[in-house]
Amino acid sequence: MTYQAMQERLLRLKNNRAFELFVVAVIIVSALEIGAKTYELPTFAYSLTSVLDVFITVFFLFEITVRFIAEPNKKDFFKSGWNVFDTLVVVVSLIPIQDSEMALLARLVRVFRVLRMVSIIPELRVLINSLLKALPQLGYVVLLLFIIFYIYAAVGSYLFKDINPFLWGNIARSMLTLFRVMTFEDWTDVQYETMEIYPMSWLYYMTFIFLTTFAFLNMVIGIVVSVMEEEHKREAALTSTEPTLDDLHCEIKELKAMVKQLAEQTPKS
Amino acid sequence: MTYQAMQERLLRLKNNRAFELFVVAVIIVSALEIGAKTYELPTFAYSLTSVLDVFITVFFLFEITVRFIAEPNKKDFFKSGWNVFDTLVVVVSLIPIQDSEMALLARLVRVFRVLRMVSIIPELRVLINSLLKALPQLGYVVLLLFIIFYIYAAVGSYLFKDINPFLWGNIARSMLTLFRVMTFEDWTDVQYETMEIYPMSWLYYMTFIFLTTFAFLNMVIGIVVSVMEEEHKREAALTSTEPTLDDLHCEIKELKAMVKQLAEQTPKS
Amino acid sequence: MTYQAMQERLLRLKNNRAFELFVVAVIIVSALEIGAKTYELPTFAYSLTSVLDVFITVFFLFEITVRFIAEPNKKDFFKSGWNVFDTLVVVVSLIPIQDSEMALLARLVRVFRVLRMVSIIPELRVLINSLLKALPQLGYVVLLLFIIFYIYAAVGSYLFKDINPFLWGNIARSMLTLFRVMTFEDWTDVQYETMEIYPMSWLYYMTFIFLTTFAFLNMVIGIVVSVMEEEHKREAALTSTEPTLDDLHCEIKELKAMVKQLAEQTPKS
Amino acid sequence: MTYQAMQERLLRLKNNRAFELFVVAVIIVSALEIGAKTYELPTFAYSLTSVLDVFITVFFLFEITVRFIAEPNKKDFFKSGWNVFDTLVVVVSLIPIQDSEMALLARLVRVFRVLRMVSIIPELRVLINSLLKALPQLGYVVLLLFIIFYIYAAVGSYLFKDINPFLWGNIARSMLTLFRVMTFEDWTDVQYETMEIYPMSWLYYMTFIFLTTFAFLNMVIGIVVSVMEEEHKREAALTSTEPTLDDLHCEIKELKAMVKQLAEQTPKS
Repeated sequence: MTYQAMQERLLRLKNNRAFELFVVAVIIVSALEIGAKTYELPTFAYSLTSVLDVFITVFFLFEITVRFIAEPNKKDFFKSGWNVFDTLVVVVSLIPIQDSEMALLARLVRVFRVLRMVSIIPELRVLINSLLKALPQLGYVVLLLFIIFYIYAAVGSYLFKDINPFLWGNIARSMLTLFRVMTFEDWTDVQYETMEIYPMSWLYYMTFIFLTTFAFLNMVIGIVVSVMEEEHKREAALTSTEPTLDDLHCEIKELKAMVKQLAEQTPKS
Repeated sequence: MTYQAMQERLLRLKNNRAFELFVVAVIIVSALEIGAKTYELPTFAYSLTSVLDVFITVFFLFEITVRFIAEPNKKDFFKSGWNVFDTLVVVVSLIPIQDSEMALLARLVRVFRVLRMVSIIPELRVLINSLLKALPQLGYVVLLLFIIFYIYAAVGSYLFKDINPFLWGNIARSMLTLFRVMTFEDWTDVQYETMEIYPMSWLYYMTFIFLTTFAFLNMVIGIVVSVMEEEHKREAALTSTEPTLDDLHCEIKELKAMVKQLAEQTPKS
Repeated sequence: MTYQAMQERLLRLKNNRAFELFVVAVIIVSALEIGAKTYELPTFAYSLTSVLDVFITVFFLFEITVRFIAEPNKKDFFKSGWNVFDTLVVVVSLIPIQDSEMALLARLVRVFRVLRMVSIIPELRVLINSLLKALPQLGYVVLLLFIIFYIYAAVGSYLFKDINPFLWGNIARSMLTLFRVMTFEDWTDVQYETMEIYPMSWLYYMTFIFLTTFAFLNMVIGIVVSVMEEEHKREAALTSTEPTLDDLHCEIKELKAMVKQLAEQTPKS
Repeated sequence: MTYQAMQERLLRLKNNRAFELFVVAVIIVSALEIGAKTYELPTFAYSLTSVLDVFITVFFLFEITVRFIAEPNKKDFFKSGWNVFDTLVVVVSLIPIQDSEMALLARLVRVFRVLRMVSIIPELRVLINSLLKALPQLGYVVLLLFIIFYIYAAVGSYLFKDINPFLWGNIARSMLTLFRVMTFEDWTDVQYETMEIYPMSWLYYMTFIFLTTFAFLNMVIGIVVSVMEEEHKREAALTSTEPTLDDLHCEIKELKAMVKQLAEQTPKS
């Protein structure tokens, strides 16, 4: 059998509906197995998961190989981020880990197999792509939010360090505490503690909450507006076969020229 | 009296405004009775509720029978989800329950009678229908949210199981804990506990909160956009009797052809 | 001096800019006095507030009398909800209260004088009016939310009454507890308590949170869409002097008729 | 070298891409230094930060001088709020502070240097400007929110002062407590405490939460709508070169006049 023939046969296999469903089924089984392992399992079930582990690893290796060979242009294969992601997940789970220390790491790596669910379902891929596309727009708002956090964390550390080192010990801890304040999680406990030494420190929390809420709101509204605009453009593109007012304007002008010429041509009565 | 005559009479009864209001009144009384039963009642009032219970059950049976007979095409009756729902509620509350064990169940079933309020008020039915219509669109975002929850819960179980089995004992418990984190409910307590063993575990919570908030936001925006679009289409449908730019374009072209023909017809001066 | 002359003079006083500002100033002073009374005051300051109280009451009575007499048509005066509100606030604070028991009530009534701030500033009146106009639209969503609360509260009372009578003792207490759950306020404490007896009760909280969040979201989106639509209509009204496509269509048709007639009139060459 | 020549040279320096990047780098280093100081530093690192401090102060002074001299019209320099802000930050950090009491203040002032990040990055400046522009629109909603807070705080102080002076001692404390209730932070603890004396006080909290949530929502929707409108106008401005329906109307009318004249000119056959 030539390579060409094999490639064609694998391409047919890859696009086979039953094969696709089987891949999804294996991913679901792999996800269930990961969940099952968090329970105390009887010895029998435990050894079953070991067998399953090997089968899933081998099957994923097989599936990625099929897709790689079926690809006519090998260079394009790794241009797709999803293919790179799938290959990484498969390759990393192939590394043999005997060390009991590393067993935990091996388990964690296998958890990422569940993410293959995203790469195999086209609708989820579209969703993730659109989420990723929205991110850069938000870049500057996130930077602004970070600057606000950083300044407040520095001030918090300078002022409140001696009051509660656990919360305000250094700038990293302070930022974590401020994130907690931003989620309104027991923030009054934090506030009442510092108000005993600095009675005006409620101003610190109040302004922080207003600034971050305002910036966050701005971010949300930014996404809404940009999503709406895209929707608008897509709609506009759909109706682009309709003539514009500009087209009508041209036509009417041509018509006027024609009537004018006709008037010159007609003998004055 | 023929069946035909009875059917007509019942149809008239069903559409009678006073009868409709009486049905609503009985549903409200049934709701109040359900609420009253949660208080300690004197013996007299308690026996009154028993009588009321029988009356309401019989009346609901009567009302659904009237509606069934009044329906000209019996097959269509069960095509409406609301009719099926009403019938179920009535039939289930007819089952005689003597067993004291089951008394609680009988009470719970009767609570669903309050939902008949939704099926009897047209505006609420419209509202529920529009909510149900919005659901499938959200399907993939919910699936994505579930995958995020599942992966984080698996990782959480593997890493934090020994720190607090109550919160991270298995994947189900972990998902419940993560839902709690998503609602910001005492999430820092959960975080501080794991940070004692894994000082970097704040990354776990931070990324989880960002991912779920982002996905949730996306869901909300999705609903807003789809609702807006529907509104837009409804409006467009209302103005569809107005000529489009396309129509005007055609008219102008016809006009140009007419002028052209006229020019050919006119003798050159 | 005739009544007519006095009315005219009072109307001029009422519309006097300085008088308007003085009224606002008195309202602000009255608000500050209310705030000051919540502090421990020295005897001197306390007797000052008593004098102020009398002055403010008398001035408000004077001001409402001026506005009433200045009104040409007395019947129209009480057609405005704001006038009725102002009169009520003034009249109630006139009732002499000697009883120390009622002193608290007298104080509370005076607090509502601050609301006169809303009735005196036109922009705030517009804001409140637009808020009130948005309410009826939300009526059915609020009713739906109430039905969800009622059903869950009834079920909660039946199931969890013996676990914690303070939280689930009767349907009113249960609704209060559910409102707490809806605001995510220590809701896991409530949940963990009931999960000890009914391990599946997390389903109760989960579904409740999903339903109420979904309904609430729907309400918010409803307001957004209706506000947008109004904005849209207002804009459309502003551009209504521009010709519509329909107008253009008519004009072109007339033009065609004219050209057609011209063609018939022109001798065939 | 003449002043003119120096000015030109400095203008070239100011607009030099490398110089701009160096300024950003110094700001970042200054931010990192501020963060580093919140940690316990070894003596060596500590003396390094002192040197850095001097260098950054001198460099910022140099940079602001360059920008001032490079400005052709000196009066315009302080018309930009950003220039005023930068100058203030630099000048204040120049004040020599020996007193150990004031050392904390000196540190706090230096924190504001991080805000220069905002003034140096054009995109962040645009963002802040647009945020500031949105503020006045919200003025009246904020005023309404404040009035609601003030009235509830006064009532809260009058009623609940003796129950918990820490929370309701005076109107300022009450407003802080109400802000806490608005963020849903352990608000049920506050409520359960007052419900022991006033069993109906849940009405106080319930109405407060509804009013503030409603007003806040209104504010958010206000921003969304105004942002959308601006977007709309910007788009409309972009398409303003396209002829309007009004233009087309005029053209068609002219055309009709021409055809009419032509008809009069043509001899009746």
